[in-house]
Amino acid sequence: MKILLVFAHPEPRSLNGALRDVAIKELEAQGHEVRVSDLYADGWKSEIDRADFPSLAPDARLIAVAASKNAFDADTLTDDVKAEIEKLLWADTLILQFPLWWFSMPAILKGWVERVFAYGFAYGVGEHSDKRWGDRYGEGTLAGKRAMLIVTAGGWEAHYSPRGVNGPIDDLLFPINHGILYYPGYDVLPPFVTYSVDRLDEAGFGSVAEGLRERMRTLGSTPPIPYRQQNGGDYLIPSMQLRPELGETAATGFVLHLKDETMAD
Amino acid sequence: MKILLVFAHPEPRSLNGALRDVAIKELEAQGHEVRVSDLYADGWKSEIDRADFPSLAPDARLIAVAASKNAFDADTLTDDVKAEIEKLLWADTLILQFPLWWFSMPAILKGWVERVFAYGFAYGVGEHSDKRWGDRYGEGTLAGKRAMLIVTAGGWEAHYSPRGVNGPIDDLLFPINHGILYYPGYDVLPPFVTYSVDRLDEAGFGSVAEGLRERMRTLGSTPPIPYRQQNGGDYLIPSMQLRPELGETAATGFVLHLKDETMAD
Repeated sequence: MKILLVFAHPEPRSLNGALRDVAIKELEAQGHEVRVSDLYADGWKSEIDRADFPSLAPDARLIAVAASKNAFDADTLTDDVKAEIEKLLWADTLILQFPLWWFSMPAILKGWVERVFAYGFAYGVGEHSDKRWGDRYGEGTLAGKRAMLIVTAGGWEAHYSPRGVNGPIDDLLFPINHGILYYPGYDVLPPFVTYSVDRLDEAGFGSVAEGLRERMRTLGSTPPIPYRQQNGGDYLIPSMQLRPELGETAATGFVLHLKDETMAD
Repeated sequence: MKILLVFAHPEPRSLNGALRDVAIKELEAQGHEVRVSDLYADGWKSEIDRADFPSLAPDARLIAVAASKNAFDADTLTDDVKAEIEKLLWADTLILQFPLWWFSMPAILKGWVERVFAYGFAYGVGEHSDKRWGDRYGEGTLAGKRAMLIVTAGGWEAHYSPRGVNGPIDDLLFPINHGILYYPGYDVLPPFVTYSVDRLDEAGFGSVAEGLRERMRTLGSTPPIPYRQQNGGDYLIPSMQLRPELGETAATGFVLHLKDETMAD
């Protein structure tokens, strides 16, 4: 397999740096090709702004969606963004690795998404009709590829459990897993999350590293999170609401968007 | 009242720019003092990195939590961060205004949170005991103040409704409202969200602007989202899980962390 690992931590001597090395070593031992985008080390530009669209007239109003569409269509995105798009097309598996800061990804990685996930590439793809609402949520440019998160969190696992005060980790990561990765088509694997990282001793690290190696060994076979495809018949068009007869055990909330595996044929 | 509006959009001639002006004008008409942090216009530095901690030895490993604690304690944070902290202490109401990009705040605003919400200021506050788990989630440095989001979204309102394909807007914003604003103590007001913004005509803008003016007039009286205080007795310590007898109508999901108003005395 070809794997792109996007790494967002400012310190190579961190737990994240160590886990990245563990992951890469195991992937290469399995015969996979690995490329790394090390956002801090590469001095990645975090903000999307006018400089992203050099062909935009200096006095023109910046409308991000339109500017992104025009630049992608005309191949005038900046070289750093083009290089990332090329890597995403090359890879059949994408890994995003980051510390959970304020319950989301670091700004530098969010900026990578905003700049690289261009209109016409990661969104604004496909036709709208009474049968389809564009190619998104399970369809799109990156369909057929896999993606997963490697995340570290300072808090206790219990605090991120279904009834924990922070909110369930799967819900906290839903805007990323569903909204950023599933949206342009990726099959999204369950995340690899390490908790209480400030208290991790050597034995604890060994155990985490072994768990990560196992996930790297099963990258091609781990079943993805069973999100519902948007155009697969579960949602009404154009309101894009889940059909009333589906997901009745959960009236609201992100869990609605998982297929009820017990009912699947 | 004293209001800090943090604005995160790269184009002043945008819908966000127009709504910002509407909000400020109405607030000032009500006799409030308003200060604005215009992150793009101010060239805000998005990434937290070594440059945030000038007193960190050049060869020392960067541990963000420890570096933040030391710099806050020793008053060696950078001047741009100190200025924002001063504004947050000055204001009795904080407004974060941004376009919803990839189901979260723009990178530049996330970086504002990461850099300004220092250890000892916005987290790492208070004592841990068998009765308390620090001052957070309804308690902390910013307790007694109010906060709210002003958000624009390109998608349809139905797509963000309780059964909409994107996930419910309140759940998508939970990591921000609960995890970033309620965490350091703010009372968090319901967000003001405008949908389908790419299709907004003049009449539509007038209606949105009037809704926003109304929200600005009621900033001091709108009831906050009824999140449960962490140390108020609803959570077990130290697991910080919601007591088994609470929230039984929803087994999991973010809705657990709202007080059941029908059961409140």
